[in-house]
Amino acid sequence: MIPRIVEVRQNVLRKNDELARSLRTRFDAAGVFVVSLVSSPGSGKTELLQRTLSEMRTTKQVAALVGDLATDRDAQRLARSGAPVRQITTGTVCHLDAQMVERALDGWDLDTLNVLFIENVGNLVCPASYDLGEHARVVLMAVTEGEDKPRKYPTIFNSADAALITKIDLADAVDFNRDEAVASIRSVQPELPVIEVSSRTPSGLAKWLRWLDATMNRAGVAARGH
Amino acid sequence: MIPRIVEVRQNVLRKNDELARSLRTRFDAAGVFVVSLVSSPGSGKTELLQRTLSEMRTTKQVAALVGDLATDRDAQRLARSGAPVRQITTGTVCHLDAQMVERALDGWDLDTLNVLFIENVGNLVCPASYDLGEHARVVLMAVTEGEDKPRKYPTIFNSADAALITKIDLADAVDFNRDEAVASIRSVQPELPVIEVSSRTPSGLAKWLRWLDATMNRAGVAARGH
Repeated sequence: MIPRIVEVRQNVLRKNDELARSLRTRFDAAGVFVVSLVSSPGSGKTELLQRTLSEMRTTKQVAALVGDLATDRDAQRLARSGAPVRQITTGTVCHLDAQMVERALDGWDLDTLNVLFIENVGNLVCPASYDLGEHARVVLMAVTEGEDKPRKYPTIFNSADAALITKIDLADAVDFNRDEAVASIRSVQPELPVIEVSSRTPSGLAKWLRWLDATMNRAGVAARGH
Repeated sequence: MIPRIVEVRQNVLRKNDELARSLRTRFDAAGVFVVSLVSSPGSGKTELLQRTLSEMRTTKQVAALVGDLATDRDAQRLARSGAPVRQITTGTVCHLDAQMVERALDGWDLDTLNVLFIENVGNLVCPASYDLGEHARVVLMAVTEGEDKPRKYPTIFNSADAALITKIDLADAVDFNRDEAVASIRSVQPELPVIEVSSRTPSGLAKWLRWLDATMNRAGVAARGH
């Protein structure tokens, strides 16, 4: 990139970081635990989130923001869970940023929420650089994508707090090598928690929900607010 | 985006377009037909390209450039075909641009080639804006990604010359709805050729190779050079 672009980009990222920090302070004050989901298109973010919202809303106040370049299909799918959902349409922009999140929250009473999920645009590259004020970032990879994705997209795996391996019910059909995938994840971030899930079977969902609970408790956010 | 970013971005795209045009002139003069492949990570670009290179090199001089953020794994896989392959490592940049392609060609005698493939970074968003000087752009989507990807990432499907639906051998396992996928593609670009392929069966590969031949002949590139 030419130097002027680098300078402008650094300026944009700095402003984003500032806004993200103020969002996080707002989330903390309201006692809402915020989790973002990132992955390539079609890794199963929306499917997982729909099931997660359905499960969690029996005991907690949950909501979701969902980013896409076009259409509100994901918001419609997520709304079937019964949880409040808002779509962020980014046009040609390849990631969410803190300002889009702030705008999407307009008029929402955060004090009424325990957990807010933010589903990013499907993209394993660009979302890595943009802090959204979330407390935890979760990266998803499907067994169908191949075991080597973490080595090839290290930045996003390095910035995540957990990795979910999705579509595990298809593992045999695609000769998925679990050990190789985990080794690939660990080569980027040795201690990253890895959870295997499937939307077709209950396998993994309970473990994912336990991870969310434990992480939320560790962050101490929900305990404070409610 | 703030106005200054928009201006700088437009400047970058304009410079890229200029360089891409001069690359295309160079490809035309050398009689090499250039095809780029774009898709989300794990859609099967490398797998398809490896088989395509193996098949085509029996009758043509073929080569490939392959872009990734990190690692030369894809170049290693493609080199098994016996065709000359070069890796472009982009670092944190989420797409190839014309300058990266130009640099990667350094020292290569284009006159000896009939067909050059360029495999872009796995990303359904950012590569859409960057002309690489290619004669044809092909977008891939795997049946495992869901039928709605074209509606959600319209720009890349709108800029493509063909859409390949990959991993068709998994269609039943994921309840893939072919009609819905084709309708989704056609909602973006009504006349876009759609070809179904699978790396596990010969199904589709012959049709894809025929499309390449026909498109190359229509472009009139190879006929001129050799």
